[in-house]
Amino acid sequence: MDYRSAGVDLEKAERAKEGIREMVEATRDRWTLSGLGSFGGLYQLPDGIHEPVLVSSADGVGTKLKVAFRAGIHDTVGQDLVNHCVNDILVQGARPLFFLDYLATGEMDEGVVEEVVRGIARACQENGCALLGGETAQMPDFYSPGEYDLAGFIVGIVARDRILDGSRVEAGDRLVALPSSGLHTNGYTLARRIVFERAGLGVDDPLPGTEMSVGSALLRVHKSYLRSLEPELRQDSVRALAHITGGGIPGNLPRVLPEGLGAVIRRESWSIPPLFQTLAELGGVEESEMFRVFNLGVGMIAVVPRAEESVLIGRLRERGEEAWSLGEVTGTPGVELT
Amino acid sequence: MDYRSAGVDLEKAERAKEGIREMVEATRDRWTLSGLGSFGGLYQLPDGIHEPVLVSSADGVGTKLKVAFRAGIHDTVGQDLVNHCVNDILVQGARPLFFLDYLATGEMDEGVVEEVVRGIARACQENGCALLGGETAQMPDFYSPGEYDLAGFIVGIVARDRILDGSRVEAGDRLVALPSSGLHTNGYTLARRIVFERAGLGVDDPLPGTEMSVGSALLRVHKSYLRSLEPELRQDSVRALAHITGGGIPGNLPRVLPEGLGAVIRRESWSIPPLFQTLAELGGVEESEMFRVFNLGVGMIAVVPRAEESVLIGRLRERGEEAWSLGEVTGTPGVELT
Repeated sequence: MDYRSAGVDLEKAERAKEGIREMVEATRDRWTLSGLGSFGGLYQLPDGIHEPVLVSSADGVGTKLKVAFRAGIHDTVGQDLVNHCVNDILVQGARPLFFLDYLATGEMDEGVVEEVVRGIARACQENGCALLGGETAQMPDFYSPGEYDLAGFIVGIVARDRILDGSRVEAGDRLVALPSSGLHTNGYTLARRIVFERAGLGVDDPLPGTEMSVGSALLRVHKSYLRSLEPELRQDSVRALAHITGGGIPGNLPRVLPEGLGAVIRRESWSIPPLFQTLAELGGVEESEMFRVFNLGVGMIAVVPRAEESVLIGRLRERGEEAWSLGEVTGTPGVELT
Repeated sequence: MDYRSAGVDLEKAERAKEGIREMVEATRDRWTLSGLGSFGGLYQLPDGIHEPVLVSSADGVGTKLKVAFRAGIHDTVGQDLVNHCVNDILVQGARPLFFLDYLATGEMDEGVVEEVVRGIARACQENGCALLGGETAQMPDFYSPGEYDLAGFIVGIVARDRILDGSRVEAGDRLVALPSSGLHTNGYTLARRIVFERAGLGVDDPLPGTEMSVGSALLRVHKSYLRSLEPELRQDSVRALAHITGGGIPGNLPRVLPEGLGAVIRRESWSIPPLFQTLAELGGVEESEMFRVFNLGVGMIAVVPRAEESVLIGRLRERGEEAWSLGEVTGTPGVELT
């Protein structure tokens, strides 16, 4: 017996590595000291940051991957993964330094690996982040043919006195919403059941109520808010940022509010995008459940003193971000919809 | 429809998080600034390191997980994951700072999640490394009932002038081997085919030629070499370290040798442990393939100047490490067995 007949092809893995070399190297910056193939990636700490604090996060793409498999599109999930991680450290005031991925397959398809990594590398470049390393695992008997799982790890940096932890938030502060681009990477298990099983749609079918196909609506890339919000991190106006991921607004906004405080969300301050309305209708999903599972068009929330709200919205709009006033912080714990 | 009936139970996820809180917090050190539940983990850079370089690696446990599923033992794979990552950055001269995990399941079993994280947290403590964060993903339709995948991500640190990159290695340098504890985390797809399919053994059966059951032989924890080798990093004797993972000695030793150099391995310098001999016999696997897939008892190789070899072996033995002289570096590329 040998390894290859057992299901692991080391030469294929080597070829896949060659296929992605150029893309990975394009993400390197002056602090990246290692190339592809070293045991660990080397990244020199940029200087000039007072009391540097590393901020790190691990994430996956969830079952959005299943939509990618159906559509045969594999680069966008790579972008989703990076952007999700970038947002998760951005909300603590950090800018990204480097990223690593974990890609696990049953039988390795070099073309698919290359597409996934192309998406990862593209998003790394867009976010000014080095793709420092990763692991591509061949795991026969784990994944169905044509399927894979994907996880990402990011490390960013912030000066200790610039950490955003929500501790300065006060009752009366205002909530500014930044729009999401779609489902981002959350709620796909429910969305897939509704669209593919209950409504019996295929990825190429038009999604009722939208101008998009099911595939392109569900695969819209998770947006990175780095470009819009990084300039704010150098000022003191933003007191907290909440990335609206699994758990929706009620699950994520309280994570950055001091104990004892809560929030009121003005439901009529925005129109829920057609994609979410269609999901609610096709699935017969109650509004409270929709809020708990999906972002409903709100991808990020910034908390600012009342006096700064319109100024912040103005600056964000100048950067092309259709921000709006979503509600405010209250002295009562919990998230209330009005 | 709702999220729970679709297969994702957010309350279960919340309970699982509570179950692991104490274990995770026990790994925190004075540099860990964040608790469980923040978007990203915060870790202040330890001071006193000249030109600090971050060293990072991502890894999985591979299909060793399948053995854990059969045996119903879930903590050792967590230790495997951490120790593998620790070794991967140790070979570049780095000591670990923090670790993050990604755990993906179909239907979440809180007891299993707790066991996996218990193993991760234990190994983090043993290696002086904070468990800074992680992601536990519920992905229905991805993983078979009772199964999960596991990935780990480590960040360590080294002073720039203490990076081990093999550039000082010369022909004539000696190779010192440090024993592995078993298969570590590589070659399990082949080992499983041999043991469970070809030989038809179960996890509780005795493994022929050994004193162990199949399960305990195959689940032996991947050894961390941090304690044995960290004291060497402060000296100049060790010129390179190679962690013997996927690809065996021929796949890993050349990764740390300067171009143009190779190695001779003295086959009679050690007895291949019974576990590997049994795998070769039961599977009818050729010796060259055994060398390419398994570590064969060599978990780590240190490269030292000839004059330092016996001194290093002496120091390692004082630390309880049964090191031996394995071979030497030559002026001919490739790894030759003699």
